[in-house]
Amino acid sequence: MSKLSVEHLLGIKYLNKNDIDIIFQTADHFKEVINRPIKKVPSLRDITIANLFFENSTRTKLSFELAEKRLSADIINFSAGQSSVKKGETLIDTVNNILSMKVDIVVMRHPNVGAGVFLSQHVDAKIINAGDGTHEHPTQALLDSYSIREKLGSVKGKKVVIIGDILHSRVALSNIFALKLQGAVVKVCGPTTLIPKHIKSLGIDIETNLKKALEWCDVANVLRVQHERMDIKYFPSIREYTQLFGINKQILDSIGKKIVIMHPGPINRGVEITSDVADADQSIILNQVENGVAIRMAIIYLLAEQIKRN
Amino acid sequence: MSKLSVEHLLGIKYLNKNDIDIIFQTADHFKEVINRPIKKVPSLRDITIANLFFENSTRTKLSFELAEKRLSADIINFSAGQSSVKKGETLIDTVNNILSMKVDIVVMRHPNVGAGVFLSQHVDAKIINAGDGTHEHPTQALLDSYSIREKLGSVKGKKVVIIGDILHSRVALSNIFALKLQGAVVKVCGPTTLIPKHIKSLGIDIETNLKKALEWCDVANVLRVQHERMDIKYFPSIREYTQLFGINKQILDSIGKKIVIMHPGPINRGVEITSDVADADQSIILNQVENGVAIRMAIIYLLAEQIKRN
Amino acid sequence: MSKLSVEHLLGIKYLNKNDIDIIFQTADHFKEVINRPIKKVPSLRDITIANLFFENSTRTKLSFELAEKRLSADIINFSAGQSSVKKGETLIDTVNNILSMKVDIVVMRHPNVGAGVFLSQHVDAKIINAGDGTHEHPTQALLDSYSIREKLGSVKGKKVVIIGDILHSRVALSNIFALKLQGAVVKVCGPTTLIPKHIKSLGIDIETNLKKALEWCDVANVLRVQHERMDIKYFPSIREYTQLFGINKQILDSIGKKIVIMHPGPINRGVEITSDVADADQSIILNQVENGVAIRMAIIYLLAEQIKRN
Repeated sequence: MSKLSVEHLLGIKYLNKNDIDIIFQTADHFKEVINRPIKKVPSLRDITIANLFFENSTRTKLSFELAEKRLSADIINFSAGQSSVKKGETLIDTVNNILSMKVDIVVMRHPNVGAGVFLSQHVDAKIINAGDGTHEHPTQALLDSYSIREKLGSVKGKKVVIIGDILHSRVALSNIFALKLQGAVVKVCGPTTLIPKHIKSLGIDIETNLKKALEWCDVANVLRVQHERMDIKYFPSIREYTQLFGINKQILDSIGKKIVIMHPGPINRGVEITSDVADADQSIILNQVENGVAIRMAIIYLLAEQIKRN
Repeated sequence: MSKLSVEHLLGIKYLNKNDIDIIFQTADHFKEVINRPIKKVPSLRDITIANLFFENSTRTKLSFELAEKRLSADIINFSAGQSSVKKGETLIDTVNNILSMKVDIVVMRHPNVGAGVFLSQHVDAKIINAGDGTHEHPTQALLDSYSIREKLGSVKGKKVVIIGDILHSRVALSNIFALKLQGAVVKVCGPTTLIPKHIKSLGIDIETNLKKALEWCDVANVLRVQHERMDIKYFPSIREYTQLFGINKQILDSIGKKIVIMHPGPINRGVEITSDVADADQSIILNQVENGVAIRMAIIYLLAEQIKRN
Repeated sequence: MSKLSVEHLLGIKYLNKNDIDIIFQTADHFKEVINRPIKKVPSLRDITIANLFFENSTRTKLSFELAEKRLSADIINFSAGQSSVKKGETLIDTVNNILSMKVDIVVMRHPNVGAGVFLSQHVDAKIINAGDGTHEHPTQALLDSYSIREKLGSVKGKKVVIIGDILHSRVALSNIFALKLQGAVVKVCGPTTLIPKHIKSLGIDIETNLKKALEWCDVANVLRVQHERMDIKYFPSIREYTQLFGINKQILDSIGKKIVIMHPGPINRGVEITSDVADADQSIILNQVENGVAIRMAIIYLLAEQIKRN
């Protein structure tokens, strides 16, 4: 029960239900820690962690860094911008060089699908996937489910709709895997151009009518509109998107029940969500951010435990 | 006596004389600390500080970071360049996200006047203004006054002239507030195009003749010439500025007394000040930098104390 | 025996043989430390180090930072990109400002030859040269020699060939000084356009035939091809370079003995070295990286010792 079935966190699809339970119970402990006056534990004084971000990221990087500091780990930061990657070095060379400096855990965000899996097969360190292309973003999905569990008591049996650009979203895919594993019922909602054809094979229903989706669900996880993708011709324009899929107070009031609102951030206020909804009681957006630190502490802690056992 | 009258450091204009006394006495203690072999105190092990720099800054950022490290606080650094700000996120969302990661104090530099005040009304953390547009730069003014007090025994009754581009300078405005509060007599000196019309309403005299200004004063605080502003047509050219308002050894020798020379840095050697003056005995420019760390430790410490009391 | 003859590490040419012995023995100790579960020592809790990188560098910067963290020093990072250097500040002003914040040791990479020497004459801190233009890169040469000593028992009497662009390489020059000092026999190998005329005056032979060079040597230190230099007309093209001076398995197999392969990184796989060679048993490329941390810990530790003695 108390041991993860995996040696890395590469994606939700490699986890089982027991893994998620262990991670959440460990996160419960760390959530207490980070709400104490002294928010640090000396657990990982003997662990060095490299944060390799080959794509920009503010909040995920800050959240990981803070989780690592709260655990007293040593930290090395590496961003693609400053790097030998620009000089044509391969990913494995970059990482092996960093590992030769005696790094135990690598947290990596990379634009390519499968970068974390590839790395885990070639280097001798624990790998934590902090987002690989449009593939997976497992820590985001874990903190999302953890936040639902915190708000509603459990994830099992809850109806969750994920709203927005499902096609390009690693957040959506990891959330689908995590929610199904815990027994939630999941729908996706968005423009048909932004929903992948094979989504039904994952046991997911598609609902293109926002109001129906909201009437059905307990939780709406609202994805960020990515402006850069909205330029492409066959997509809805941003104005159209907001009209059809934007969440505002009016539509929420019209459904006759109080659903939970989530968003992975950063928010485009007035586009996929209005300010009054983002800041409403039923929104747990900032709880998601807070829980992100506890979840990441839990994952790092559990993987580091395995190192010590060796 | 030993308690600040404010809950944030947003600007000198919100402080009273007693606040400044408390800050200086606390800085006296920390100045001793940073001159010991072990320059750290464990005071703020339970405090997390976010440094949010929405504008570039080398020395202010380094000085704050070092002050925080000397106090043993945990630190998160955030620069606009890498940030979700670029993705259109609002300031409040950015900061609330960071605060959800359990941050106690925010040090913020921002290009907009009043950004710190605005933030303090909307988020639940101590705010320290590290420069907001052309408005205030309170820690710079405090370290400037502290350096005068250190050199001349006190600020009260001293004659201080601030030389340069007063119109666009947050350093000038904060210095004027701080010096007046402590009973100094203040003049400004510079091209009339660079002196705001309302300056006299603050009880400040204008002196457009550099030699007369120097003959009058005990202390000359020489502002940096900002090249980018000097392009505009109706300003003096840099060459003209240097001829009329540049401080060199010749003019200092001609006034028949030894005044104290200050500069907030970075220096344009040969423009607003010559090298021999910058490096002269009577210059306290590097003392200002050293005192900056002690002053910032004091402010952070005093605001953190308030958190512990709650 | 146990005291360095120098007060800074500005270049190998200022060291004597005894200095190198002291550095290597100290590195032996730290190499043990960084292979323990807890890789840190509390030795330098009272030391603050500024890393000033006026040129981009990934691996050297990470290696220094990690060495400093393992020694428990306080660290300030400063990169030219974010800096007042852009505002026209002089090097001495920049560094003096940082030193006024009570910094004990400066690690500096700078594009100008002699920047470290210049600085050591003008500021009151220990200076460690992390690369100055095409001049010296002493920590790289020390970790290279240390890695040879580790692999072959000693450097004395070993035949070492340095292959590539000798003309523009600070790695080559520092290696030549270090290897000669320890009694190695050194040749250089590369296109004649990339070998400086005066190299013979250093007691170095030139070998323009790669196979002959490899047949002669015990160790081949393969320099990185710098693409940006390869544009220039009279140089060999990259394809020509690879044909004439690229190291591949075929040529290594043809020489009838097993030589040691080194590379300072980052590698251009398939250009100056093929993948099978870079990853072969006889390659100590990753050992070099690992030893870099131990060597840098040793140098920082030995210079910090001098501060404590004062």
